[in-house]
Amino acid sequence: MDNPALVDVTRGNVIESLHRGRVAIVDTDGKLVCAIGDVDARVFPRSAIKALQALPLVESGAADALDLSDAELSLACASHNGEDVHANSARVMLMKAGLGEDALECGPQWPQRMEDAARLIMADETPCGLHNNCSGKHAGFLGLAKVMGVKTKGYVEASHPVQQEVRLVMEQMTGDKLSEDVCGTDGCSIPTYASPLKSFARAFAAFGTGAGLEPLRADAAERLFNACINEPYMVAGADRFCTRVMEGFRGRVFLKTGAEGVFCASVPELGFGIALKCDDGATRASEVMMATVLEAMLELNDDETVLLDRLVNPPILTRRGAQAGQIRPTGDFLAALKTALS
Amino acid sequence: MDNPALVDVTRGNVIESLHRGRVAIVDTDGKLVCAIGDVDARVFPRSAIKALQALPLVESGAADALDLSDAELSLACASHNGEDVHANSARVMLMKAGLGEDALECGPQWPQRMEDAARLIMADETPCGLHNNCSGKHAGFLGLAKVMGVKTKGYVEASHPVQQEVRLVMEQMTGDKLSEDVCGTDGCSIPTYASPLKSFARAFAAFGTGAGLEPLRADAAERLFNACINEPYMVAGADRFCTRVMEGFRGRVFLKTGAEGVFCASVPELGFGIALKCDDGATRASEVMMATVLEAMLELNDDETVLLDRLVNPPILTRRGAQAGQIRPTGDFLAALKTALS
Repeated sequence: MDNPALVDVTRGNVIESLHRGRVAIVDTDGKLVCAIGDVDARVFPRSAIKALQALPLVESGAADALDLSDAELSLACASHNGEDVHANSARVMLMKAGLGEDALECGPQWPQRMEDAARLIMADETPCGLHNNCSGKHAGFLGLAKVMGVKTKGYVEASHPVQQEVRLVMEQMTGDKLSEDVCGTDGCSIPTYASPLKSFARAFAAFGTGAGLEPLRADAAERLFNACINEPYMVAGADRFCTRVMEGFRGRVFLKTGAEGVFCASVPELGFGIALKCDDGATRASEVMMATVLEAMLELNDDETVLLDRLVNPPILTRRGAQAGQIRPTGDFLAALKTALS
Repeated sequence: MDNPALVDVTRGNVIESLHRGRVAIVDTDGKLVCAIGDVDARVFPRSAIKALQALPLVESGAADALDLSDAELSLACASHNGEDVHANSARVMLMKAGLGEDALECGPQWPQRMEDAARLIMADETPCGLHNNCSGKHAGFLGLAKVMGVKTKGYVEASHPVQQEVRLVMEQMTGDKLSEDVCGTDGCSIPTYASPLKSFARAFAAFGTGAGLEPLRADAAERLFNACINEPYMVAGADRFCTRVMEGFRGRVFLKTGAEGVFCASVPELGFGIALKCDDGATRASEVMMATVLEAMLELNDDETVLLDRLVNPPILTRRGAQAGQIRPTGDFLAALKTALS
């Protein structure tokens, strides 16, 4: 893995740190429009593919049977902050399936933001599975298990019918064979399968456009895409990159972050799917990489320009709030994108 | 900057992420014993050199004039968790200088651990400068300013007599010229000067042994070294790498972490100073790098072996606490260390 430096971090006039990475952009024909770094090596997609993992929930009819709202489908695709609105919605999703929070097998997690953690503490509570950033995805898995009529216990195991369904859909969407030896356990205890970045980009080109998908799957993808676009706060929450971009781009872009520096997106107007990873796993870099790709790719209005400019060049601040440096795309990264997209 | 991959992160059988970096080890003659990656490029030392920044406090006589204890001198070298014991000790250091917490110019910071943040929240308080991980260093700067008889306001500015003193000591310890153009602003608002890693390693070889230092400075270094060794909890706190290693090695090793993946150490029995940086700024990698260097360098008893084994190979856990992967040194890193230290 000898991928180029795509993002650096300055302090004063000095480059303090840098992040290497790789980017794959694929069109609806499956053509690799842009490949920066090694896009053939397998990477774990982690949470960046939650929207694909939610496809069985919708195309099985379970989402309808459970009467899930757009907000709840968005939560099924989310890595949320564990704010009250997220935890409560996950609880309602479970109730709709006739289950309680004790059915969750994702493990507990403190809410992302101090103020939400503080509310729990003030109420003398500790976090539970509902606050886990993956609780909506897990509530979706449990709802699917109920509608499928299979046992819910052990729904996180690779051998469980729900995970077998998810794996099959991932194989179809990526065009990749997912075997045991590329399977790892995600932080929320479900299996995660490593595939090439270009395969994930291909999947998200189809997800955002329906191109090449069976009608039932195309409908399911469209419904999940629209749910996330309509309810972007449920996908992440306050002060979060995914929420800000999906709010600001009003349907032009679907995108989803994942742990260890992964980011995926669909840009329907161009027919592009995007998948990228920062080699060292840093979210600060994967966010700048995604913002830079979108800025290079899209014609922007004034509001969109202002939004992306901030995300392409986030400031490094002191604890008094003064700017000490900047995170920014490297010249090589900008040049490579320009060449690929021109 | 094309430094080797020194640490990787596995999940299942796949390498999920990797961290590049560089390591400099220098002996008391100033000889570069080991150079992995580019040790000539300038890096910001950030908090890894707090013990050197505390030298003026001691050698000026200010530490004696203020009657500072070992615990307080250790806190002056600390990046602490902001636990009650840390915040309270910083408050006492300020009181000894006739100052209150409002004199601190480091800015507020939430305590590192949720349980300490929770205590603040339950008391309906917000964090202040005392909870800033650098509050002990700042209390030391303020004490020095008082004893020097200069104004305390603006003590974080590069032009202030205290920061001029610190800069002079850093130039002498590193043997490097520190000019404006390599100066950045640290997160706690003081100036930080970028020097080559090999220069910081040289400084810590002298710090741990006194070799080549004037008697007054050698005494000050010994006092700070012993203060940190005797009070390792004040340097960091619960569940922290620096505290665990200094507690476990009982005087054999002084070490200090810094932001953006920097780590420095002194190993007096070998006469070595160590300075390393993870290129992408990840602390999880700089800790594994330091643990790996110590393991390669030192003859270990059973307890030390157990301690370092855990730090060389920290597990990646799911939120239910199951092991999903591992952080570990690369084969290239181990081979390079073996060659250099044999």
